[in-house]
Amino acid sequence: MRPSGRTASQIRPVTITRNFTCHAEGSVLIEFGNTKVLCNASVVEGVPRFMKGQGKGWITAEYSMLPRATHTRSDREAARGKQGGRTLEIQRLIARSLRAAVDLKLLGENTITLDCDVIQADGGTRTASITGACVALVDALTWMRAKGILKANPMKHMIAAVSVGIYKGSPIADLEYLEDSAAETDMNVVMTDTGKLIEVQGTAEAEPFSFDEMNEMLSLAKDGIMELFDAQKSALA
Amino acid sequence: MRPSGRTASQIRPVTITRNFTCHAEGSVLIEFGNTKVLCNASVVEGVPRFMKGQGKGWITAEYSMLPRATHTRSDREAARGKQGGRTLEIQRLIARSLRAAVDLKLLGENTITLDCDVIQADGGTRTASITGACVALVDALTWMRAKGILKANPMKHMIAAVSVGIYKGSPIADLEYLEDSAAETDMNVVMTDTGKLIEVQGTAEAEPFSFDEMNEMLSLAKDGIMELFDAQKSALA
Amino acid sequence: MRPSGRTASQIRPVTITRNFTCHAEGSVLIEFGNTKVLCNASVVEGVPRFMKGQGKGWITAEYSMLPRATHTRSDREAARGKQGGRTLEIQRLIARSLRAAVDLKLLGENTITLDCDVIQADGGTRTASITGACVALVDALTWMRAKGILKANPMKHMIAAVSVGIYKGSPIADLEYLEDSAAETDMNVVMTDTGKLIEVQGTAEAEPFSFDEMNEMLSLAKDGIMELFDAQKSALA
Amino acid sequence: MRPSGRTASQIRPVTITRNFTCHAEGSVLIEFGNTKVLCNASVVEGVPRFMKGQGKGWITAEYSMLPRATHTRSDREAARGKQGGRTLEIQRLIARSLRAAVDLKLLGENTITLDCDVIQADGGTRTASITGACVALVDALTWMRAKGILKANPMKHMIAAVSVGIYKGSPIADLEYLEDSAAETDMNVVMTDTGKLIEVQGTAEAEPFSFDEMNEMLSLAKDGIMELFDAQKSALA
Amino acid sequence: MRPSGRTASQIRPVTITRNFTCHAEGSVLIEFGNTKVLCNASVVEGVPRFMKGQGKGWITAEYSMLPRATHTRSDREAARGKQGGRTLEIQRLIARSLRAAVDLKLLGENTITLDCDVIQADGGTRTASITGACVALVDALTWMRAKGILKANPMKHMIAAVSVGIYKGSPIADLEYLEDSAAETDMNVVMTDTGKLIEVQGTAEAEPFSFDEMNEMLSLAKDGIMELFDAQKSALA
Amino acid sequence: MRPSGRTASQIRPVTITRNFTCHAEGSVLIEFGNTKVLCNASVVEGVPRFMKGQGKGWITAEYSMLPRATHTRSDREAARGKQGGRTLEIQRLIARSLRAAVDLKLLGENTITLDCDVIQADGGTRTASITGACVALVDALTWMRAKGILKANPMKHMIAAVSVGIYKGSPIADLEYLEDSAAETDMNVVMTDTGKLIEVQGTAEAEPFSFDEMNEMLSLAKDGIMELFDAQKSALA
Repeated sequence: MRPSGRTASQIRPVTITRNFTCHAEGSVLIEFGNTKVLCNASVVEGVPRFMKGQGKGWITAEYSMLPRATHTRSDREAARGKQGGRTLEIQRLIARSLRAAVDLKLLGENTITLDCDVIQADGGTRTASITGACVALVDALTWMRAKGILKANPMKHMIAAVSVGIYKGSPIADLEYLEDSAAETDMNVVMTDTGKLIEVQGTAEAEPFSFDEMNEMLSLAKDGIMELFDAQKSALA
Repeated sequence: MRPSGRTASQIRPVTITRNFTCHAEGSVLIEFGNTKVLCNASVVEGVPRFMKGQGKGWITAEYSMLPRATHTRSDREAARGKQGGRTLEIQRLIARSLRAAVDLKLLGENTITLDCDVIQADGGTRTASITGACVALVDALTWMRAKGILKANPMKHMIAAVSVGIYKGSPIADLEYLEDSAAETDMNVVMTDTGKLIEVQGTAEAEPFSFDEMNEMLSLAKDGIMELFDAQKSALA
Repeated sequence: MRPSGRTASQIRPVTITRNFTCHAEGSVLIEFGNTKVLCNASVVEGVPRFMKGQGKGWITAEYSMLPRATHTRSDREAARGKQGGRTLEIQRLIARSLRAAVDLKLLGENTITLDCDVIQADGGTRTASITGACVALVDALTWMRAKGILKANPMKHMIAAVSVGIYKGSPIADLEYLEDSAAETDMNVVMTDTGKLIEVQGTAEAEPFSFDEMNEMLSLAKDGIMELFDAQKSALA
Repeated sequence: MRPSGRTASQIRPVTITRNFTCHAEGSVLIEFGNTKVLCNASVVEGVPRFMKGQGKGWITAEYSMLPRATHTRSDREAARGKQGGRTLEIQRLIARSLRAAVDLKLLGENTITLDCDVIQADGGTRTASITGACVALVDALTWMRAKGILKANPMKHMIAAVSVGIYKGSPIADLEYLEDSAAETDMNVVMTDTGKLIEVQGTAEAEPFSFDEMNEMLSLAKDGIMELFDAQKSALA
Repeated sequence: MRPSGRTASQIRPVTITRNFTCHAEGSVLIEFGNTKVLCNASVVEGVPRFMKGQGKGWITAEYSMLPRATHTRSDREAARGKQGGRTLEIQRLIARSLRAAVDLKLLGENTITLDCDVIQADGGTRTASITGACVALVDALTWMRAKGILKANPMKHMIAAVSVGIYKGSPIADLEYLEDSAAETDMNVVMTDTGKLIEVQGTAEAEPFSFDEMNEMLSLAKDGIMELFDAQKSALA
Repeated sequence: MRPSGRTASQIRPVTITRNFTCHAEGSVLIEFGNTKVLCNASVVEGVPRFMKGQGKGWITAEYSMLPRATHTRSDREAARGKQGGRTLEIQRLIARSLRAAVDLKLLGENTITLDCDVIQADGGTRTASITGACVALVDALTWMRAKGILKANPMKHMIAAVSVGIYKGSPIADLEYLEDSAAETDMNVVMTDTGKLIEVQGTAEAEPFSFDEMNEMLSLAKDGIMELFDAQKSALA
């Protein structure tokens, strides 16, 4: 039995609000239950030095939790003077996932930065970030086309992400904080809307997991992510 | 004539939303027109080392702008590895102002941190932060009293803040970004609801200002702040 | 056809040299072909602050590449003043994997740090690090038992790791640098010698991968890791 | 009664020594009683990147206290690896104040840096810095004219600064450390020799202050600053 | 022929001003010609953690050049966020030299920090620092004895330092900047007033030097340092 | 009597292994007894900004100890976020020494970086680094000549280094850790194979040393270094 009464495969209600702030080229507030992440897409001309002269664009991401997004206050990374390993790991994952959704050649020598700032956390902040950032990215690309910066749509497919895990011995989808902190295994899965995998990151927190459990988790992830694609489509309609 | 059509003394519509997030002991979203700041108050037992053993509490603040709160994206301070001078200056101002609102003895050896994170910026982020943080502080103190941590209410008076300035030769109140970036003089005023001053920070950006102009600005500030106290009271009712 | 002429499932020759340096409680040089990593295990009494008083031990890891372990020289992280995201991500993976191999209760309030320093890199440095660090950890635990610090052996099972990927459309095991830099998909797998999974980290570098490809890669990984357990056992014999 | 026996409006003896060091284009040791600050002006061709191509110059400032300028030794900021909030706030104030004294167009694309290093502190270090730096700036501009770098004098007016405050219930001018640390309110005022205001920064340290007290303090500040202009003129004669 | 017309063995005029600032337990301005260094000694109870419980004291040093102590302005290390290698090397030398002058047992568990801040530089800043810091140290120890903190004088002998070098093929003493920047070899020598060596640091900047040249330089150093001991004695008389 | 039974002038067995790693243009593992340092030389086109346009090359060095090169584990400098004073001092010494061995004009506008990473430490790591780096440098220059980058050999002479000291009252050569940590005086000497001095750094750790002792140490150093030149020559044969 899950704390929320959800079934094993049931993901939390998803809300996607576009144009949440007014300055960014794409601005999405995404909610997975009580997890709320603001995903802003910023377009700038030019690419980082290591990409120059290749005629290709770049997509990068930054992730942060507001200090009091969590039950107890965390130190502000800007005040500590460095980003922690968890932050860097998550923002690398977000950026890699979104780069896999885009044809960088069609983007031209432009950079899109996706800022994912967690306003409130209840598990699944990285998967919500990826799912919301994909919508913000679509809006930013639409803005670029409207401005005449792009000739063709660089989006190869939509992507979305969900967490799955083994909790009290059973596979479940979309873990909230109470489940996440007690799970034996935790896995984040990023997929395309063409049914393929972009990232799979499974970790045995307490107990090693079997190949069968891995497959059960992947199957739950697939179902959950399909619902997320529906939510993205509704929001973009 | 102001870009928004406001009169010289007219402040922007103010919205104060309490309990904006669910974990903080006080959580307020304050809006001064298009400026939106999330003010979270976090209570922790104990005080910083330099305050230990005095039987008094401590109030501190941190301020940050989300990278895309502004027209063009700013670098994330956590990624750059340090907080800028403007950030430090503003968070010192917020903390000083709120400490002046509280009897630290009645707070006991507890610390309240006020995190002011700017979601969207259009001028006046520091004055919105102070005004919103004061409401979040009230909620946090109420929470502490409900928990039996405090015996008496440490709040000495409410505080609120507004910016004033000289714009195209005339004094105006509550500058938005377009005005702020073109103003000859810019002044931030923090007051108590007993009509006294906590902070006055006036700066000649382009032209020195006279003692008369200073008094006119202070007078506009007083009127604007009185309206803010009304907004705070309505929100707390 | 692989650049080295290896078959798809063939891992590189593995060499494990114990007592490579004289000061560490466990010191192993592990070679996966041309990849050479020095894994030193250091034992200290006590645990980090967040673990104190729980009667449990802690295992942590640090990873670094010598500046000229690679084809062209990389900046030294100590000189740049911070560890990069890749470094932090890898050392978090190493530490998590090894903690999953040990019963922290039986370790008592002691900390073991595993320093994995890459002397020469040719792909697979993180999987070599995990595989070598596990042997260094065994030696350190043996040293602790000989000193009377431990009453029972905290090792729950051996762990080892290998990389797999999709290269020119086919799944292969233990990618060297030339393959790694051209692979469509890259996956690192950590397993126990009881046949269970500890970590699975698959990334679509260029093309999304299917569930079938994922299973083929996992199967190659399992076979490769079994050979690594043999190499560990021979070394420890 | 003030500790020094001064009257409420009496500022400390002011000494201004030009050419205190031999390398800087302007070098002034200024003393406000026991407060001693070395103000060096350095001229370099060119401007920071954000100013390039505008045909205008730039003036910036850095402030520091020697570790043992104070009663007890403070940590050296270079050793701690960052400048504190107080330091940044003060050097921003100094730079802003001096930029307001100069016509940046007439300066051409040149930068003048004002280094204010506190040799000995007894209150009022920021106001002494501004007052002394203005003299160093005049000397640097004279040097530039002698070198043929400038065609016209960019100085619009002299500036000077003094601190005022409410001490034991009464307004006083030019607080020394004993007064400053006990004052209810502390205010720093920067003015032009044409009688206008450049900066007003008033802070209620212990008690809010009234509009009347504010005016009394401003009046004291004006009188004190007029004496400082005399001291500047004598030094420059 | 030296730029200043000095003979090969002639050191610059030395001036030692005690009590240069009012807060430090020892405060000395030392001048070697145009090189001026402020040496402040600060006494604090207690020792760094690695020295605790040994019943011994500690002496440490920090060195810095004001940004405009030199012909062209150097970046401020506090603003750059770290101390350079040259700075660290020099302050380690100063601290080591002064520790060699003191019986740390007689100092008790107290720490003396010697801050050497270069006000104006013209070569020989590190040797001036050591020579001046030794006098500041004597004053701080006298202060400690007067306060009853010390029972016996921990000073084992005075120390002083001078630079020597090979300039245009000939050994000279006490190099000023013009000589230093053109010298083939540069050597700093620290000695006791009992005629023994504390530190010898010789560096071939342009040309290797012979054993004979080394001995000639040492001989010049000895003579110069003897004059410095006279200057110290006069100052302390 | 020395702990190892060596005579006063006897240096430890020296082993020099070239091509220790496969990527660097010069790669040498040097062993002075139990001290083992990996010295990699990396060639890059171009020079640092301050050297540009002079038609000359540059040689620099970086030094580091693996965390567990020593008896107890040291913090990793990359994790602490800065290189310590000892590290910076040593790498400055290594770089200066090697620059003195090379005609920078003949090197053209190329930079060679010498990375000296201590795998295992037992005293003398800086002298081993210099001696090994010189061989790696020769290999890198040979590689450059083979590539046609250099027309003439820029090597002016070989250099090598040894430590000497006063241990239990007597001068000895090539101190190992046990001797080093107990020595009264410690001196590092760098020489050319033409019998001249490059660097002499003598430090009285516990007792000042006499001019006679200095000469005895220099004499021991000279003999030891001559043996090192033989080892270099054999390795390069």
